Amino acid sequence: MKKEKIVLAYSGGLDTSVAIKWLQDKYNFDVIAVALDVGEGKDLEFVKNKALDVGAIKSYVVDAKSLFADEYVLPALQANLLYESKYPLISALSRPLIAKVLVGIAEKEGAVAVAHGCTGKGNDQVRFDVAFTALNPDLKIVAPVREWAMSRDEEIAYAEENGIPVPVDIDNPYSVDQNLWGRSNECGILEDPWAEAPKGAYDLTTDPVDAPDKPQVVQITFEQGKPVSLDGEAMEFSQLILKLNQIAGKHGVGRIDHVENRLVGIKSREIYEAPAALTLISAHQELEALTLPREVAQFKPTVEQKLAQTVYDGLWYSPLTKALQAFIEQTQTHVSGTVKVKLYKGHAQVIGRESAQSLYDFDLATYKPEDSFDHEAALGFIKLWGLPTKVHAAVNQTNAVTDEAIENVVVDVKEAVKQ
Amino acid sequence: MKKEKIVLAYSGGLDTSVAIKWLQDKYNFDVIAVALDVGEGKDLEFVKNKALDVGAIKSYVVDAKSLFADEYVLPALQANLLYESKYPLISALSRPLIAKVLVGIAEKEGAVAVAHGCTGKGNDQVRFDVAFTALNPDLKIVAPVREWAMSRDEEIAYAEENGIPVPVDIDNPYSVDQNLWGRSNECGILEDPWAEAPKGAYDLTTDPVDAPDKPQVVQITFEQGKPVSLDGEAMEFSQLILKLNQIAGKHGVGRIDHVENRLVGIKSREIYEAPAALTLISAHQELEALTLPREVAQFKPTVEQKLAQTVYDGLWYSPLTKALQAFIEQTQTHVSGTVKVKLYKGHAQVIGRESAQSLYDFDLATYKPEDSFDHEAALGFIKLWGLPTKVHAAVNQTNAVTDEAIENVVVDVKEAVKQ
Amino acid sequence: MKKEKIVLAYSGGLDTSVAIKWLQDKYNFDVIAVALDVGEGKDLEFVKNKALDVGAIKSYVVDAKSLFADEYVLPALQANLLYESKYPLISALSRPLIAKVLVGIAEKEGAVAVAHGCTGKGNDQVRFDVAFTALNPDLKIVAPVREWAMSRDEEIAYAEENGIPVPVDIDNPYSVDQNLWGRSNECGILEDPWAEAPKGAYDLTTDPVDAPDKPQVVQITFEQGKPVSLDGEAMEFSQLILKLNQIAGKHGVGRIDHVENRLVGIKSREIYEAPAALTLISAHQELEALTLPREVAQFKPTVEQKLAQTVYDGLWYSPLTKALQAFIEQTQTHVSGTVKVKLYKGHAQVIGRESAQSLYDFDLATYKPEDSFDHEAALGFIKLWGLPTKVHAAVNQTNAVTDEAIENVVVDVKEAVKQ
Amino acid sequence: MKKEKIVLAYSGGLDTSVAIKWLQDKYNFDVIAVALDVGEGKDLEFVKNKALDVGAIKSYVVDAKSLFADEYVLPALQANLLYESKYPLISALSRPLIAKVLVGIAEKEGAVAVAHGCTGKGNDQVRFDVAFTALNPDLKIVAPVREWAMSRDEEIAYAEENGIPVPVDIDNPYSVDQNLWGRSNECGILEDPWAEAPKGAYDLTTDPVDAPDKPQVVQITFEQGKPVSLDGEAMEFSQLILKLNQIAGKHGVGRIDHVENRLVGIKSREIYEAPAALTLISAHQELEALTLPREVAQFKPTVEQKLAQTVYDGLWYSPLTKALQAFIEQTQTHVSGTVKVKLYKGHAQVIGRESAQSLYDFDLATYKPEDSFDHEAALGFIKLWGLPTKVHAAVNQTNAVTDEAIENVVVDVKEAVKQ
Repeated sequence: MKKEKIVLAYSGGLDTSVAIKWLQDKYNFDVIAVALDVGEGKDLEFVKNKALDVGAIKSYVVDAKSLFADEYVLPALQANLLYESKYPLISALSRPLIAKVLVGIAEKEGAVAVAHGCTGKGNDQVRFDVAFTALNPDLKIVAPVREWAMSRDEEIAYAEENGIPVPVDIDNPYSVDQNLWGRSNECGILEDPWAEAPKGAYDLTTDPVDAPDKPQVVQITFEQGKPVSLDGEAMEFSQLILKLNQIAGKHGVGRIDHVENRLVGIKSREIYEAPAALTLISAHQELEALTLPREVAQFKPTVEQKLAQTVYDGLWYSPLTKALQAFIEQTQTHVSGTVKVKLYKGHAQVIGRESAQSLYDFDLATYKPEDSFDHEAALGFIKLWGLPTKVHAAVNQTNAVTDEAIENVVVDVKEAVKQ
Repeated sequence: MKKEKIVLAYSGGLDTSVAIKWLQDKYNFDVIAVALDVGEGKDLEFVKNKALDVGAIKSYVVDAKSLFADEYVLPALQANLLYESKYPLISALSRPLIAKVLVGIAEKEGAVAVAHGCTGKGNDQVRFDVAFTALNPDLKIVAPVREWAMSRDEEIAYAEENGIPVPVDIDNPYSVDQNLWGRSNECGILEDPWAEAPKGAYDLTTDPVDAPDKPQVVQITFEQGKPVSLDGEAMEFSQLILKLNQIAGKHGVGRIDHVENRLVGIKSREIYEAPAALTLISAHQELEALTLPREVAQFKPTVEQKLAQTVYDGLWYSPLTKALQAFIEQTQTHVSGTVKVKLYKGHAQVIGRESAQSLYDFDLATYKPEDSFDHEAALGFIKLWGLPTKVHAAVNQTNAVTDEAIENVVVDVKEAVKQ
Repeated sequence: MKKEKIVLAYSGGLDTSVAIKWLQDKYNFDVIAVALDVGEGKDLEFVKNKALDVGAIKSYVVDAKSLFADEYVLPALQANLLYESKYPLISALSRPLIAKVLVGIAEKEGAVAVAHGCTGKGNDQVRFDVAFTALNPDLKIVAPVREWAMSRDEEIAYAEENGIPVPVDIDNPYSVDQNLWGRSNECGILEDPWAEAPKGAYDLTTDPVDAPDKPQVVQITFEQGKPVSLDGEAMEFSQLILKLNQIAGKHGVGRIDHVENRLVGIKSREIYEAPAALTLISAHQELEALTLPREVAQFKPTVEQKLAQTVYDGLWYSPLTKALQAFIEQTQTHVSGTVKVKLYKGHAQVIGRESAQSLYDFDLATYKPEDSFDHEAALGFIKLWGLPTKVHAAVNQTNAVTDEAIENVVVDVKEAVKQ
Repeated sequence: MKKEKIVLAYSGGLDTSVAIKWLQDKYNFDVIAVALDVGEGKDLEFVKNKALDVGAIKSYVVDAKSLFADEYVLPALQANLLYESKYPLISALSRPLIAKVLVGIAEKEGAVAVAHGCTGKGNDQVRFDVAFTALNPDLKIVAPVREWAMSRDEEIAYAEENGIPVPVDIDNPYSVDQNLWGRSNECGILEDPWAEAPKGAYDLTTDPVDAPDKPQVVQITFEQGKPVSLDGEAMEFSQLILKLNQIAGKHGVGRIDHVENRLVGIKSREIYEAPAALTLISAHQELEALTLPREVAQFKPTVEQKLAQTVYDGLWYSPLTKALQAFIEQTQTHVSGTVKVKLYKGHAQVIGRESAQSLYDFDLATYKPEDSFDHEAALGFIKLWGLPTKVHAAVNQTNAVTDEAIENVVVDVKEAVKQ
């Protein structure tokens, strides 16, 4: 009888290598391995061959850097997405793309199932499972690591029995995921939220103390909310991110130490590095400050927060994501211009911004003689603006100045008054 | 006939000194000057005498530092208030207190009016006027600078005619306001948002490049959302802020360069320095990350944003402020613990946090054998969590993987597959 | 010298008729009158001639019913817009259209100014002025009624002097505005919020007590959020509204008695009638309940509220409106189907709804044997869903059952326990 | 060996009667039955004895009507809680109280477990389980109906074998839950959302067609957001609700037909009756319209929506509920006054409202000569209010009137213009 096929998200690491064998043993599947490069700098050739070596019948490797940058990272940047104001959604953005490629290949190959290597405790299992279900509800989902209940030692024994190479750094205490938009790191020593993350927890960023002693200013140019050039040099978005990761990383920019609320109900302590992401988000926000009218600027954060939550929670393929993105996209029409960011010792500081669409109006803003602002108008404005508060106070006498606190400070200085 | 009295918010500067004379000339008022120290380090004795010298009939000076810290700054810290995610509301917090003291003194003195020195273009005029109206709608409000329409030169001439001392640094291009919570600076060269703020624009903070080469770690202890000790030493909140301004300022922490949307409808470019404010807000946020349950952590920002807007917009005495603060206060019950912050070259980075009320549960979070998390539960959770997205996808076939983009990346690698 | 031209929003009533003359007298303008029919059932021919009779040099009359329905009312319906949950934004929707037509004609005619007949106290002046400014900031705006400060008697005298016909019902105590989407009525007796509105305040709706004794069920069919047929008969949206106004109005449906917060800071008591609007909004909401996935259904109200506020506040031409509408539009893709509404004695009750895009899944929802819902999954779901609350309770012992209240009820029944 | 005790939420119906036996058989528990009267009009004596008859070792019956009204319903009314704008959270409000009483009794009795009769598909299981966990995480939770997997016929057979009386109306197609705040009904014929609910689905409300032909006006007086008298007669809140259920129910008021999104991910069609709830919420909202200042009125709905969601989702004992309630409570300080509601043929219409704290200011609102509103102020207000939109339009020329649509309507009428 012909065996059924399963398409596995393959990383090249121990877990998914063991999974190839385990899916054969336990479910009698033919396993098709798929590895995507979304900017982590994988040796795709090596990964491709390793999958085949440990038993995959086919091994796809996909360079998805541009696709990832343009269709997953860009909407996140335009919405300044930071989950809980801190986490730039690194892995949360790549999961929906990986799921989509897997489903696409599964359909092409006539597979009946898809698989991922997530545990039962993280957010990524939710992102994969919900994405698979949304993209093709007929595909069965298998999550070997969540299912097999092997301890680390048992897994290593299983690998050795089955001729699966065990990495030399198997005792590495960190669990890392990385792509264009950054790197996440959890586990081990990091699990104590009081302990400072050790130097070894970081890889993309220089320790600020060791970073260059001279600040570096970069200029980032945006067109309709999309970064199009760095220091005047036009480049593809994915290339710009990679380059900026190097520059900002060298200056120690992008370290995030966060205790975050996972969708599965627990708090976890995470170390992220996102040099380009944090630099670009800061720059983008400042350009928006210049080019978005007040009303948009003040409601957009509500949409941003909801979108960050939605993406974090694995609902990329929910229609809500589309609707929120439609809002965001509409706001980017005039977000064009250039931002200067000073990178220095762990910090990215915007120090200047300009735009042909700037709504900063010198003649309105200046206190110099060329002031064109109508100072009289303010009087009428204030009168009506404060009217509800005034009527409330008059009717309810709520704010009568009788606090003892005020009495006290005023009494205290009475002596100081010259008659 | 007995002259009517007016109570003026007096700073000791040129504008309000001229205002004392002008209020006498134009309105025939007896002027009572009131100067508050809310942490700007004024020489109150000097200010008191200057007011009398230029013609005030009485001169109050009020040390309001503790009052300001405890009743105006603390609620702002507990709500992590940053207007447009950047501005810690420095002046917006002091205005309602100054207004309250003025109204209190006006009532005590039987004055018929109150006065402030704001122009017709800023936010502070709104904050003063709305606060006065809410606190005592019967008091007339006079805003000499908004009203008199003198140019700078005319004002100087008027001062000289009337024996009002003109400051030697009258050509200082900056317009500064300062209190415990920070310092704001606008005007002149700063009006070009592309130009980096010059060194002279800053006063509370060392330029990061000149800051110490060695990081300094401070430990801040909170009880129910209130900072109570610094590096283990208990101190009053106002003192803690002043001390932290020095320490963090020395490390260049707290510089903010912002193009902001004013309530009066224009954008303005502002330079703020808030070493203690930014350090404390970061620390407080991280302690909240540890001690607030997810549901609170994820809705509180909505309340925070609204409160920031409300305070910025001069509505401190609106009942909305009270209601929002009631929410915030309720959330602080368990926000107790200690946070370590590393200050270095312009950056304040939280590197550790601990709390007896910590909701971070090692046994749930760990990937070690002591893991108590129920991995099975995740399966059921994901199924129901993703159900609406799944049903929608099944009914509307919205997410079928037919994008050309995916096709393309997958096609590209087909060659790479070993048969 | 050639006189400059002004384009006036002309209603045919006393105020704008007097304004034609006044604009000539006071400003020496040539007045071009423009009257739009947005569904109030005006006699356009009469209005056109009246304008010319009282002195306009040109008189445009524009049938804008379809345009109004399709481009202003439809987005409001799709967003279920009800300001303060009650007012369907009747006048707030027509003002931006009227302003646009006026500016269009002003540009075509080479006019230098535009004019409207609003007073200085309502919302409509804001809507007109902001719309004019957004559409063509070079046009001067004149608001004769706001400006002339004539009392009612003075105005009548002025009219009589200038041969302007004074309506016979000049003592009519109501001030009415009407279009396709409804009718608003303020003033006079209505100004006492305790007094019930008298019968004469209503015009589009039968008093429920006098409405037919037999309910009528109408079926409304939507395609992508747009009503396309009524009781199976396809019709243009503007026609469907007019027809439904008659049917629902006959049944007394659509009366709204509201104390509302105006943008200009005061509360006003308003009587609205909106038979079609309320019926269509109810039907549309119920169809959305069937076809929107939970996540969209639960965030859309946030966008709706903001859009209602934005439109009410006269910001139709703010970029925020566009962005919010982009969100709304995206959500309507699958809002197709038919809704049955029972109209009876003042009430419109949805009693059935069906859709090919229905997300109501009988097999999941039923309690019959064909139930396909995974009951086991609920266990895992609940465990993780409640985890943050559980950990918080365990750490902080917040919810220990020690309330006296509970003690008391339990103690009370102790006797009732059989041993 | 002594048997362990379990405390069961007992309704007197078949499911929980069978559960008593089943908990003995399957788990060898001693079962303590607890029945609460939260306003459903149970015969508590009968229920108490039935529990003992079918095998409970103890049977508590608790009259919790006042407690339920004052501590669970009142906060819901003050927040105008309607889940998805329609459902007044009837069962969602009683579950946390029942859970609290159960846990209280379990602690008093030394029980090791608690039990409820919910299935695995509804919301109530979540509400019970999360509440139990929050109140006492050490108690084991058993949900017999969710667990036993008996079909209806098997359950009846089990009952008959064990001498448990099977109700004569066992074929009743409805599944009903009822308390003071209303009655919910699901299942059977109701599962088709296109079919109108049959007459038999309703119990608390007269069919509007059969309701009295004469409207009845009731007056409801509130003090600080709490209803304290009905038609001038002071009464306890729980009594007021019961009485209003009768009056409004007689007039057919309170029927709700809703397709709602359950927390467990499915849509279900529900029929609710809530005569008092809908009448009181309308009245309360109108009183708020009169007494809340604009800023509060416009933000409160955001808090209300969140609280409705939180309560619906079973998070009554989450700290978020407390914080949201703190906000709501603060807003009620001045919500005092009387509201007239006209009940007629299925509809409750507020027709008048008065309050000593009314913020409706006749002198500001009137168009009569006593008008005290400053019409001049509007000019300044509009100028600054519209400034961001104006600057944006000027910079980006976004709104130039070039739509073909406008061109067309204007062109169409050109003929109509008299030269």
